[in-house]
Parts: sequence; C-alpha cells; structure tokens
Amino acid sequence: MCSLTACSPGAAPLSPDGGAGDVGPGAVSAASFVAGSAAIPPPVQEPESVGRTLRQTTLESSRAFDLVRSLADEVGPRLSGSPGSKAAVAWGLRTLSDAGLTRVHAEKVIVPHWERGEESGEIVSPFPHVVRLAALGGSVGTPANGLEAEVIEVDALDAVDKLDPAIVKGKIVFFYVKMERARDGSGYGRAVGVRGAGASRAAKLGAAGVVIRSIGTDTSRLPHTGAMRYDDKLPKIPAAALSVVDAEMLHRIVALGKPVRFRMSLGAKSLPEAEGANVVGDVEGSESPSEIVLLGAHLDSWDLGQGALDDGAGCGIIIEAARQIGRLPKKPRRTVRVVLYANEENGLAGGRAYAKEHEAELSKHVLAMEADFGAGRVYEAHFLGDEAKRPQFSALIDLVKAIGVEPSPASAYGGADLGPLMTAGVPVMDLRQDGSLYFDVHHTANDTMEQVHKDDIDQAAATFAAVAYGAADGSGDFGRIPEDKRKPR
Amino acid sequence: MCSLTACSPGAAPLSPDGGAGDVGPGAVSAASFVAGSAAIPPPVQEPESVGRTLRQTTLESSRAFDLVRSLADEVGPRLSGSPGSKAAVAWGLRTLSDAGLTRVHAEKVIVPHWERGEESGEIVSPFPHVVRLAALGGSVGTPANGLEAEVIEVDALDAVDKLDPAIVKGKIVFFYVKMERARDGSGYGRAVGVRGAGASRAAKLGAAGVVIRSIGTDTSRLPHTGAMRYDDKLPKIPAAALSVVDAEMLHRIVALGKPVRFRMSLGAKSLPEAEGANVVGDVEGSESPSEIVLLGAHLDSWDLGQGALDDGAGCGIIIEAARQIGRLPKKPRRTVRVVLYANEENGLAGGRAYAKEHEAELSKHVLAMEADFGAGRVYEAHFLGDEAKRPQFSALIDLVKAIGVEPSPASAYGGADLGPLMTAGVPVMDLRQDGSLYFDVHHTANDTMEQVHKDDIDQAAATFAAVAYGAADGSGDFGRIPEDKRKPR
Repeated sequence: MCSLTACSPGAAPLSPDGGAGDVGPGAVSAASFVAGSAAIPPPVQEPESVGRTLRQTTLESSRAFDLVRSLADEVGPRLSGSPGSKAAVAWGLRTLSDAGLTRVHAEKVIVPHWERGEESGEIVSPFPHVVRLAALGGSVGTPANGLEAEVIEVDALDAVDKLDPAIVKGKIVFFYVKMERARDGSGYGRAVGVRGAGASRAAKLGAAGVVIRSIGTDTSRLPHTGAMRYDDKLPKIPAAALSVVDAEMLHRIVALGKPVRFRMSLGAKSLPEAEGANVVGDVEGSESPSEIVLLGAHLDSWDLGQGALDDGAGCGIIIEAARQIGRLPKKPRRTVRVVLYANEENGLAGGRAYAKEHEAELSKHVLAMEADFGAGRVYEAHFLGDEAKRPQFSALIDLVKAIGVEPSPASAYGGADLGPLMTAGVPVMDLRQDGSLYFDVHHTANDTMEQVHKDDIDQAAATFAAVAYGAADGSGDFGRIPEDKRKPR
Repeated sequence: MCSLTACSPGAAPLSPDGGAGDVGPGAVSAASFVAGSAAIPPPVQEPESVGRTLRQTTLESSRAFDLVRSLADEVGPRLSGSPGSKAAVAWGLRTLSDAGLTRVHAEKVIVPHWERGEESGEIVSPFPHVVRLAALGGSVGTPANGLEAEVIEVDALDAVDKLDPAIVKGKIVFFYVKMERARDGSGYGRAVGVRGAGASRAAKLGAAGVVIRSIGTDTSRLPHTGAMRYDDKLPKIPAAALSVVDAEMLHRIVALGKPVRFRMSLGAKSLPEAEGANVVGDVEGSESPSEIVLLGAHLDSWDLGQGALDDGAGCGIIIEAARQIGRLPKKPRRTVRVVLYANEENGLAGGRAYAKEHEAELSKHVLAMEADFGAGRVYEAHFLGDEAKRPQFSALIDLVKAIGVEPSPASAYGGADLGPLMTAGVPVMDLRQDGSLYFDVHHTANDTMEQVHKDDIDQAAATFAAVAYGAADGSGDFGRIPEDKRKPR
C-alpha cells in the first residue's frame, strides 16, 4: 500500500483557479493517495478527479441555502423539548430522505426541557430605563413580582471571588466582560466563562441575581442567550444577559458613582425531561459500508432567533455535502453518515446518546467532522488523530485548496457533539469557517436568514463534500486520537 | 458695503489642511465678506480668523458626545407627552444654562400624547413564528384579544389601490417596500409613503389592518416605528412595522403560495393632548442682538431607543456649537439662538408654536439651520434663500472646507421643525451629515449611544459652530426665500 506519508511530498499542487483546469490528467495530486493503493483495482471513477469535480459541482448546484431557508422558515426556533424541536425532527427525516440518503431514522434522546417564559428588565434608578435582556438557558426564574436590588459591577469572573460577601449579599452582580472579535471565534472561549459559571460564583457570596454583558461582538439591542449551569451545592439565583447596548449603558451609569437599582422579571423554568431525537441517514459505502465518515451538525437551536446560523447552516452544509456525494455515479468506498444531533445547545445529550447507541461501531468510525460555526467560508483545516497520518489529512485538504482552504498544523477542536466520539478515539477534522461576524448574532433574535449568504455557504458545502468524499473513498485511515489527547469523559 | 456677490470671486481658497496654517495674514478669504465691509470699523477679533479658530477649538474641546450621552443616559426615550419628555425639558433648561446661554426658557407647546402599550405579533400559519413588530406612531390599537386575518401582500402604496375590494376586505395588507441606502438618506423619502398613508389606503378597500416592512436599511430584528396619519373619512385600522428580518420572512412565506394567517395585538392608544415645551436659549449678539441666527434640533424622540441619533445628536451638535460661540472673547454681532423643539416626531407642534410665538420677530431671523440627521460628519451644504445671496453662502462654507464640507448648488431642505419659518420666508441652510448608516437604526431600539462616534459628531459640531458664527458675525444677510419656494402652510 502506498504510504500516504511517503507519497505526499511528490504530489503536484492543485491549480489555484479551482476550475476544471485542475482536473486534467497531469494533475496527479495528493488526492490519489486518498483513493487507495495500487493493490486495489482502480475504481471506475478517478478519485482525485472525482473529488475536485464534486467540489465544483457542489459550488454550481448547491442547495445548502435553500435547506437552511427551509429549516429556518418552515420550522424556526427549536430548543430541546419545544414544539419546534419535534417539527425539526420531522423536517430532518423528510429532508435526509429527499436528499437521497438511506437508512434514515430518528434515535431517541432524552433531553432537558427549559422554557423562557415572559421576561423584562429595567434600571430603576438613578435614571429609569427599560433594558433588553434574556434569561440564560437553564436559569431559574425570579419571583413572580420580579427581583429588585442594587447592582454591583465586576469586570471578570474571578473578580467576584475577591469581593467582601457583606457587600455582595442581596445584590445583583453585573459581570461586565467584553468579547473580542476574531475570525476563529477565539474571543468566545475567553469571555464565555461568566455565562456558564457567573451565577454560582456570585451566589457563593450571597448575591440575589446575576446579569452579564452579552457574550457577543455586536453593538445591538438584542441580548445573547446561551447555557449556564448551577453548582448544586449553592443557591440557584436567576441569571440573564443584557444586550451589549444595555450593558454599556448600565456600565456608564454605574460609573457615575451613585447607587444603581436594577429590576428583572424572568419567567424561566425547567420542566421534566422530554423526548427528543438525533436524526441519522447514510450514503452507504460501495465497498466497506461498515466504515463510517461522520458529518455532524445540530438540529436544535436557541429559542430567540430562527437558528439559521446556529446551526441551520451546519445542517444545510452537511446535508448538501452528503446529497452531492450520493449523486455520484459510484458511491465512495465507505459510508458517509449524516447525524443531526439533538440538544447541542443546552445539554449535549444528543452527542452522548449517539456514542452510546453506536458504541459497538465506533472503532469503524474512520473520521468525524462537525459543522457548527455558521454559514461562512471555510479557510483552514485542523486535524486530530494519529499524527503519523497527518500527510493524509494534508492530501485531503489539497482537494479544496483551490477554493481557499489551507491545512493548519493546529490540533482540531472537533465539535461539541463529537466529544464522546473523541473520548473513544475517533479522529476529527475541523473545516474552520470564517466566524468574524458570527458572534454579532449568535444566540440572539438576529440569528436569521439575513445572515446566510449563498456564495459563502456553498463554498462551505463544497469543502465538506470534497473532503468527506476523499476520506470516504480513500483506502487509508486517520488512526485514532492518542489516549492523552482524547476528551475526558 | 462690499457686496458679497461682487467680492466673492476674488477670495483666496482656504488651506486644505484645516490647521492653524490657514489662518495666516495672507489668507484673506471669502469669510472676510461675512464679517462686514470696510465701512464698518474693524472688530477686535479678525472674523475669518475667528471662524476658523473656532472650528479648530471646537474640534479639540467639543463636549458634543458627552451632551448626547447625558441626554440619552440620564433622560432616554422622550416621546411627546411621556414622563421622559418632561425630564427632557428640564434637561434642556439645565444644559443650555450650563452651556452659558442666556434668556434660557421653556415655551409651552400643546402636543399629541400617544402611547404604545404592549404589543406582539405572529405568523399563525402555515408556519408559526413569533415576529418583532412595532405599532406605527398614531396607530389605533387592536381589540384586546388581537386581530387575526389572512395576509395580502403588495409591493407599493399604489398597488393596493388596484386591488379588488372583495379580495382586500377583512385582510391584513402587508406593504413590502424596500428602502435603499444612500449617504443623503434619499431612499427614505421614496419609501416612507407607505408608513404615513398605508393604513388609510388599505382601509379604503376594507382592510382590517396593515403591516409594513420597516422603513430602514438594516437586516436586523428591531422594527422601525414612525408617524402615520389617518384619513378622517375612513375607518381607522391598526398599523405596525415588522422588523426587516420578519418582513423578509413573511415575504418568503407568502411567496410559497399557501394562505398566510397573521395575528397582531397592539395596545396603542391616543390620549388627550398634553403640555410640552420648546426650550430656547441665546448667545446674545454684541451689536445687533435682535437679529437671529437660529440653530434647531428636536428634543423629543421615539419611545423605542435612547434617541441618541434622533435627535440627541442634533441637540448635542447645536448646543455645543452655541457653547463654543458663547466662549469667544467677543460675541458675534447677531444673536445665535438655540431652539430644542418639542414634538418633531409625531405632530410638529413645536415648530408651529415657535413660529407663532415669535411671529413678530421672524423678519429678523436672518438664517435657520436644523441638525436632525444623526451624528455623522458634515460633507455638503445646501442653501435656500435669495439666490443673489448664494455667494455669501459659499463664503460661509469656505470656513469649513478644510474639514471636508463642500457647498452644493442644490436647494436646501431646511428641516421639519423649520417648515413654518420657511413659510414665512426665513432662509435656511442644510449642513448635510453622512447618513449612510442612519437608517439602519432610525426609530428603532438601536438608536443608542453605540451609534455616536466622537470624532464624527465633533466635526459636525465644529461645522455648525463655524458656519453659525460666520452668519451671525457677518454684516450681510441671506435675503428671504422667494414666495414660490416657500413651504406651503
């Protein structure tokens, strides 16, 4: 077998134009290594040529935008346990079938069920203002007549720990933490801690409630929700995100030095767990159907927007990639599986359920990729698996260099739903999308079709199609994630 | 007396750098004509030099941003008749006094009093969606249990007239009219007709209600309110603006061809007229105090945002311009008057009341300028008065060419509050601000301090300061608006 490592350096670069010109007989690229060794009878279709033609065909005939539109407009918000989440499962089953996938089915997942209810907020004094806020997902509600208290502002999660409990007691702690814009979304990880842990950290000192500056990069009046979690050993206090604009106003008013009283009313509540589902469908492999290249995205969304970017776009990208692969005259050797996960947003129950349901076949999961970063163009690819297989990863990315994708030596993140697979050693790739604008609307009412641009999402779908095809039709594999790099259980 | 017309061509151009270098003794510019003729004893301060120094001083020490912040944060929304409008009058009196103006006082204005109340909307079928809408100002409410009806979409105000009343009867007419982005805001005039007249045009054919695509250039989830008016001879039906995003969604869903049912609940109502006030203050002229250069902006705002751009920014610009003029060692010859008008947004009662209250002195109003287009930089100036005086206008604008302002041959618009002055012949100038982004947030909850940028508003304040000073210190005048170009009564 032609070792990918040994052969890779000899590969000719792809034509940068991305057109048909790079599919000529002279273009013996790294993709040929993906296709298998000389010991395997040559397939009818030339794999490297097929991968690049598939890329081009997808660019020219992609339905990704329409898939997202259909989910966003005909289903809309679909938080776990909501009526929308049931409609989304029906949409997923119907859409995967329409896309030509087989063995399309739902796999039951028990999911959290949290409801927002009515909510409102205001600065009471010294200057009265109605503010726009959103309960954080999982927050308890306030008493029915609301919670009013003086505000104490801190500029970091750790800062609250250093306060005198006598000062914090009974107050509403305001976490004023800014998120920085970045193409790779790296500002999110640095800022989001206050959303998850702020309430319990403040409750530990006796706070009555928490408001945070929305974790977002916009300057708009729409708050960003998102999951929070309680430390079960501490009192559960209500927690909400103020829109960036309202947080900035509160910050300016606090800075004037007078006591600031704030009032919020949150109707949020957690209900008994509900039944949800992962939706699964396959493009069955032509030679080794039990070997699986998994494409994941999540079907659930937050309740405030249409869930067009998060993660309607991811669903559209991977369904379209699989549809295009399924339309090839000859299916790839391995199975390409689409999994539309339940409950990424507030529990990750879908990812856990899939790994448990498919435990016996995880060793045959050759590669997994999740699309969960909006509708932007893919610009870079990361890998996490057997480092000795990295040249094979690079060879796959050669298939999409012509449309702007570069391999990176960085270790892949994988994806929230893929965590349990990664724990089991399943290798992953990130096809990283441009997220420069993603956090302007992430988890807000502005997560709508107006944020999805056809040219961009089509490039992403073409990238996923070509790379997934290459991985599924190649004879090589990506090994397993080394034990010391697997996600902890 | 040196005729401005005759002298103007000989004027040397200003240095383009805008710095101290353009104030040298060789820079005998057109501004000298503004200052008066050789027959008048030369003032202690050199007028053209003063105008340009004032411009520079304002750029360097402008408080315009802080003035807007104070109004937006410490008063906030201030629709006529609301508690905020009373707080705004108190703010205006205090702020004009703090700015060093004299004869600061409030002049009573009877204003409309309309309240929004609670409101909500949803697409009921074929795909349920909660939508974001805002009642148009002046709209009646729906019945308490809401109004539900089938939607009929039209793409222009005129289009509804051509429909069969049998088709329109009982339906909710959806005006899907897009507004185009332009630096001068010209798209607004072309689109806004449906907001003002749509309800009665639809009611004429028996419609039960109206929704419009927000008159705005954004792709956000925040609806744009704004004034509408009823034809008293027709039934008054409720009218609301959908956010651009929701209007686009409704448009897509209507396009699928199935009947679309829509429901809205508007708590809007008109209350008895209330007492409001124009706030007036002067920088009294040193030689001809009865001659007035009027700087106008409006103190009221819509209820959804902070009124930072509309028209907190205008208030900040003209107050700062007057404050800087008032700090000069020698006041200009004429009085510079600041008028913060009540009720621009929904009635224009402030503009009418001022013109009536000051009817006897309107002949002494030498020039009027209104700042009501946000916080952007001034790029162009327009004039409407005696065309023979146009060179004097150009000479004034020479004072601010160095900071990017060009004179235009176009006829000035004036300003909504200035209409009654224009009817009386008072000449006007527009110092036109860049409004490229203005209609992204105009009349929405996003009209906040995040939209005000210090460098830009300081340039606008410096422009108003220099031009107002030049007009007030010059000996020439701008004639009167010819009868045939006056705004109709």
